[in-house]
Amino acid sequence: MKNDNNIPYKTYLEEHEIPRQWYNVRADMPVKPAPLLNPGTGQPLTAEEMTPIFCEELVKQELDNDTPYIDIPEEVRDFYKMYRPSPLIRAYFLEEALDTPAKIYYKFEGSNTSGSHKLNSAIAQAYYAKKQGLKGVTTETGAGQWGTALSMACSYFDLDCKVYMVKVSYEQKPFRREVMRTYGASVVPSPSLETDIGKKINEEFPGTTGSLGCAISEAVEVAVKSGGEYKYELGSVLNQVLLHQSIIGMEAKAACDKLGVKPDIIIGCAGGGSNLGGLISPFMGEKLRGEADYDIVAVEPASCPSFTRGKFAYDFCDTGKICPLAKMYTLGSSFIPSANHAGGLRYHGMSPVLSQLYHDGYMRAVAVEQTSVFAAAELFARVEGTLPAPESSHAIRVAIDEALKCKETGEEKTILFGLTGTGYFDMVAYEKFNDGAMGDYIPSDEELEASLSQLPQIDA
Amino acid sequence: MKNDNNIPYKTYLEEHEIPRQWYNVRADMPVKPAPLLNPGTGQPLTAEEMTPIFCEELVKQELDNDTPYIDIPEEVRDFYKMYRPSPLIRAYFLEEALDTPAKIYYKFEGSNTSGSHKLNSAIAQAYYAKKQGLKGVTTETGAGQWGTALSMACSYFDLDCKVYMVKVSYEQKPFRREVMRTYGASVVPSPSLETDIGKKINEEFPGTTGSLGCAISEAVEVAVKSGGEYKYELGSVLNQVLLHQSIIGMEAKAACDKLGVKPDIIIGCAGGGSNLGGLISPFMGEKLRGEADYDIVAVEPASCPSFTRGKFAYDFCDTGKICPLAKMYTLGSSFIPSANHAGGLRYHGMSPVLSQLYHDGYMRAVAVEQTSVFAAAELFARVEGTLPAPESSHAIRVAIDEALKCKETGEEKTILFGLTGTGYFDMVAYEKFNDGAMGDYIPSDEELEASLSQLPQIDA
Repeated sequence: MKNDNNIPYKTYLEEHEIPRQWYNVRADMPVKPAPLLNPGTGQPLTAEEMTPIFCEELVKQELDNDTPYIDIPEEVRDFYKMYRPSPLIRAYFLEEALDTPAKIYYKFEGSNTSGSHKLNSAIAQAYYAKKQGLKGVTTETGAGQWGTALSMACSYFDLDCKVYMVKVSYEQKPFRREVMRTYGASVVPSPSLETDIGKKINEEFPGTTGSLGCAISEAVEVAVKSGGEYKYELGSVLNQVLLHQSIIGMEAKAACDKLGVKPDIIIGCAGGGSNLGGLISPFMGEKLRGEADYDIVAVEPASCPSFTRGKFAYDFCDTGKICPLAKMYTLGSSFIPSANHAGGLRYHGMSPVLSQLYHDGYMRAVAVEQTSVFAAAELFARVEGTLPAPESSHAIRVAIDEALKCKETGEEKTILFGLTGTGYFDMVAYEKFNDGAMGDYIPSDEELEASLSQLPQIDA
Repeated sequence: MKNDNNIPYKTYLEEHEIPRQWYNVRADMPVKPAPLLNPGTGQPLTAEEMTPIFCEELVKQELDNDTPYIDIPEEVRDFYKMYRPSPLIRAYFLEEALDTPAKIYYKFEGSNTSGSHKLNSAIAQAYYAKKQGLKGVTTETGAGQWGTALSMACSYFDLDCKVYMVKVSYEQKPFRREVMRTYGASVVPSPSLETDIGKKINEEFPGTTGSLGCAISEAVEVAVKSGGEYKYELGSVLNQVLLHQSIIGMEAKAACDKLGVKPDIIIGCAGGGSNLGGLISPFMGEKLRGEADYDIVAVEPASCPSFTRGKFAYDFCDTGKICPLAKMYTLGSSFIPSANHAGGLRYHGMSPVLSQLYHDGYMRAVAVEQTSVFAAAELFARVEGTLPAPESSHAIRVAIDEALKCKETGEEKTILFGLTGTGYFDMVAYEKFNDGAMGDYIPSDEELEASLSQLPQIDA
C-alpha cells in the first residue's frame, strides 16, 4: 500500500480534540441568507412566531447571522464521544484503482448506528428540547435516516420521540422503522388518523401511501397542539442544522492541518444541504474572509437538480405549503422526483445558506445521473471496503471524475469529499443496479416549468 | 461523562501497531486439540487428504499445533488497515446506566461493511487462495455474515467467489445477498441444480428451503470437482480460523496494556467459536503458561447449548455427514435449534481448540435465553449507541450480569467482552422482540438425547 509522507490510511483526532464550538458560516457571509417569511403575512418570521414550533435555543441559533462560534454543550460533546471524532481517510486503495496522481481524502460520517451524519444535529436538537423541559419532540421521516438519528438522540436524553413515517416507507422499509422502535420511538405511518391533517388527507385520498409533505404537516400539528409539551425538529435545510453539522468540517480541517494537507477541491452531496454545509463551513469561512481559496462543489442528482436547473426564489419548504417560505434554489414545492429515482437527495429546495453562497459565486454545482452514481458506489465499495449510501455516492462520483481529470492532466490535486453514510438499508436500490434494472431519470424542461410556474409571488 | 484515570471512551491503536503475527494458542496447550478424522477410515486426516478441499497454506496452519507465532502477510495487513485496529471501548455509558462499580470494556469488531469479525479470517483465506494461483473459492452461508466477508475479501484480491446460500435466507433475507453481489460474488440458492448433491436433495425433497449442511456439501463438491481451480473456505470452527481471529485478542491486549488495564473477566459469545477463540487467545496463552489468571466465559444460547449440555466426543462437522469428524462439544450433528430461535449461534458443535480448553478447565460456559439477550441488546443500543448483532448480545447479557453482581458485592472488577458485530441485518428478530412476540426455546432432555444418541462410535 502506498504511504505518502507517512500519512496513515485513517486519521482519528483524539477525543479531547473534538471541537468545543460550532462554526456559524453566516457570520462571515457578505450577503446573509434571506430570512424565512410568514406565508400569511409575507413578513420575516419572528422568534415569537417560531417558538410554538421550535425549541427556544434553536430559534436563537436559526436567527443568529452574526455570532461566528457557538459553544457545544458539554452534554452534547459527551454524546459525540460515542462516535466522534470521525475518521479522515486517505483513499489509497481508490487512488491505486484509478491510477491517479490526485490525493483523495474523505471524511466518513457513517460509523454510527443511524448510519449517517444526521446524528450530529439530532443530539443537539434533543439536548435543547430536554434543557427546555419538554416531554418530547415530533418529526417526520421518509427513508428513515433522520428519524433514526433523532430516536437515538431522544433515547439518550430520555425524551419521547414521535416519528411520522411516510406510509409507503413504513410498510416497505420496515428495518429502519424497527431500529427507531428499538430506540424507544413511537413510529406512526403517515397519513395517520391521529391528526386533523392526517384525517383530512385520508378522507380525500383513501388508500394514499403518504408523502414527506404530509408527514411534516402531521408532525408540526402535533407539536403545535401539544400545549408546549412537544416541539418539532427537522434534520436539514435550516440554518441551525448547518451550524450543528459544522462539526464535520471543523474536524476535517483540524485533521488536514495536523497532516499538513490543504485540499484543492472539496466535494459534497447536496439534498437539503446539511452535510455539504457542514463539511465546507470552515473552509468556506476562510474563502469568505479571503484567507484561502478552495474549489467547492455541490453534487446533486440529475433527477432533482435544484442548483443546476432550479430558480433562486422564495418558495414553500414543504409540498403541503403550511411551512414558512424560504429563499432558496428550488424546483418548486410541487416538484416530485421520479419514483424510479433511487439515489436519495429528493428535496425540491436547498438550504438558504448554501443557496446564497452559490448565488454569490462561492461554490459550483454538478448534477449526476444515478446509474453513474451506483457504478461509482460499487467501485468504491470494492476497493475501499465501505458500502456507501446512495446519497454519499453522488460525492464519490464527482471525486472520481476529478481524480480521472488529474490522471489526464498529470495534476496532483488534493481532493476532499464527504462520505455521509453507509448503504446498509439501501439494498433494494443496489439490487436494482446489480440486476441492470436501473435507469436514469431527467426531468423535462416542461416538467420543471410546470412546478416552477407555481412559485409564490414574493418580491424579495 | 465519567473519565476514569483519563481512559478515553474509545482507544484506537495506531496503524503501525496492528500486530505483525497471529498467535497460535495451540502451541501453549498442554493437551492439543484432537485431530480431524477421515470419516471413511477413522484415521487422522492427513495434509494430502485436506488439499483437495483447502488451500495448501491453510492446511499447514490447520495442522500446526506447535508454532506459537505465524507472520501475517503484508498484503493482509494492508487490508486490515481499512478497518483495523478496531476500537477498545470503555463502556462508560453502560456502567452509568447499571450504576455498577465494575469497569466494562468491549472490543468492537463491527466497523466494517461485513458487519462482523468474520472479515479477519476471510481476507487471510482469500490471500492464500490468490497466492496459490486459484481462480476462486467456494463457501456456504446462512444469514450471510461469512459470505459477505468472503465476498469482500475476494473482491479485493480479484478472485471468483461462489456462495451457496441457504434458500430460505436467499429468498427471505435478500439484503445480505445483495451486498455479496455488489462485491461481485455469485450467490446461488441452495440446494441448487448445479451440483449432484443439490440435484439429489431437490429430487428427494421437492420444494425444500435448504439447510447449512446441504450448502456446505454443495460448496465442497464444486471445489473438489473444479480440477484445482477452486478451493473451499469456512468461516468458523477450524483451527486456522481461530488463528486468524487471534488478531482481535492481540489488539485488545495491546490496548489494555497501553491503558494499564488488566481484565478480571473475559466474555465472548460462542457459536462455532471463532470470535471467542480469537478474543481470548493471548490471555489464554498467559493463563496456560501460568503468567496470569483470567476468568474466561463462553456464552451460548440456551436453545443451542453445546458446551453446557452437549458431549465432548467425535462428531460430524456438518448435518450432511460428508465432512471430517471433529472431537468437540456437540449436540449431535442432527440437532437443529428451534426455528423460533432468532439469536444466531445455531451451530451444533464447537471449535476443537475451545472444546479441549473447556474440557481441561481453562474456561467456563453460560447458557442464556434469547428474550434476556434481546433485552440486554436493547439497553446496550440505547446507552452505548451501537445496535448490536443478536450473536454479540449474548456476551453483552453476561457482561451486564457480571457487572450487576459487582454492584451487589461492591467489587470493582474489570470486565472485557467481545462485541462481534452490528445488528443492521437482523431487524426481523428485533421486530419480534419489539412486538413482544419473542419466546424462549430450550430443548428438552429427550430432544438432546435423540440427537446425541446418533453420535458416530469412535474411540479417541
